[in-house]
Amino acid sequence: MSRQANRGTESKKMSSELFTLTYGALVTQLCKDYENDEDVNKQLDKMGYNIGVRLIEDFLARSNVGKCHDFRETADVIAKVAFKMYLGITPSITNWSPAGDEFSLILENNPLVDFVELPDNHSSLIYSNLLCGVLRGALEMVSTALYLLGHLKCGPDGCGGQVCPGHLKGDGVTEIRMRFIRRIEDNLPVGEE
Amino acid sequence: MSRQANRGTESKKMSSELFTLTYGALVTQLCKDYENDEDVNKQLDKMGYNIGVRLIEDFLARSNVGKCHDFRETADVIAKVAFKMYLGITPSITNWSPAGDEFSLILENNPLVDFVELPDNHSSLIYSNLLCGVLRGALEMVSTALYLLGHLKCGPDGCGGQVCPGHLKGDGVTEIRMRFIRRIEDNLPVGEE
Repeated sequence: MSRQANRGTESKKMSSELFTLTYGALVTQLCKDYENDEDVNKQLDKMGYNIGVRLIEDFLARSNVGKCHDFRETADVIAKVAFKMYLGITPSITNWSPAGDEFSLILENNPLVDFVELPDNHSSLIYSNLLCGVLRGALEMVSTALYLLGHLKCGPDGCGGQVCPGHLKGDGVTEIRMRFIRRIEDNLPVGEE
Repeated sequence: MSRQANRGTESKKMSSELFTLTYGALVTQLCKDYENDEDVNKQLDKMGYNIGVRLIEDFLARSNVGKCHDFRETADVIAKVAFKMYLGITPSITNWSPAGDEFSLILENNPLVDFVELPDNHSSLIYSNLLCGVLRGALEMVSTALYLLGHLKCGPDGCGGQVCPGHLKGDGVTEIRMRFIRRIEDNLPVGEE
């Protein structure tokens, strides 16, 4: 289902609950569709990636955020502008690696996990993994288009999207660990300008 | 995945775009899972119903809306409070039946259909049908719990959830027709109090 050319430019501000429950329906459907949690995680990441690739255009149009000069600035934009805009929360940025190429986003009261208790048989499910895909897709697009900073790895293998153990006990804390891998510089910018 | 007892009471206000795209991913997944549009419509209605059954509790806690005395008041609450809260829009209420038991909600710029163009082979898909299920589930719960007003029919058969022909051409207008069927009075209120 492709992007509609002529859509309203005014964003609608909504409470998060309908989104939260709809996301729950999506994850539940995927758990029915796929045999194991790892496949659900992959599918959520893939869906998120496709969303991020499209959401970034909306983000750039509405945020007035310019080119980031380093990874720390990118982290700030993600946490303070993007998360605030699309989820209504501002994650904290913590645990920078000494080399400055890794950090964690800590989501207090992650709206995606409101209402949620995972059944015991889904212990490997990374419930909020869609977000990792969104970040991956959006950042990849920006890097390409603006020579920004590139391919981040957000996923279960290695660094991203792991959910803190506490998140199913009611405190709703989610950690997303992000690592800078490389700048994408070998593609021409995409877009009309 | 059951309701979490101890969640934050503060609602997060978010822009609708991430929700819109996530909803698109859900519909796309269902179109893969089910053979025909009618089954997708049914599944969306069912998911929506389950969401509505849970969302109503949040709505009552946050809206300060009391018992509605007639169907017109219910229509107002749905359009001006509930839609505003959860989708950031206020549908207009039109086309009352002479008997006052049917009306239409007209959603200008329905956020669910932002970005969306349906492929030709999904002409029977009622893309926003989740909303009909949400309304059905939520209203059924209220009627039961508060002796409010009951079983509304929102669905493809008869009255609800049809999408106006214009909605895929960029104007984003969706019509949901609602009909009052009966008050649910034979159940005891549900809840702790």
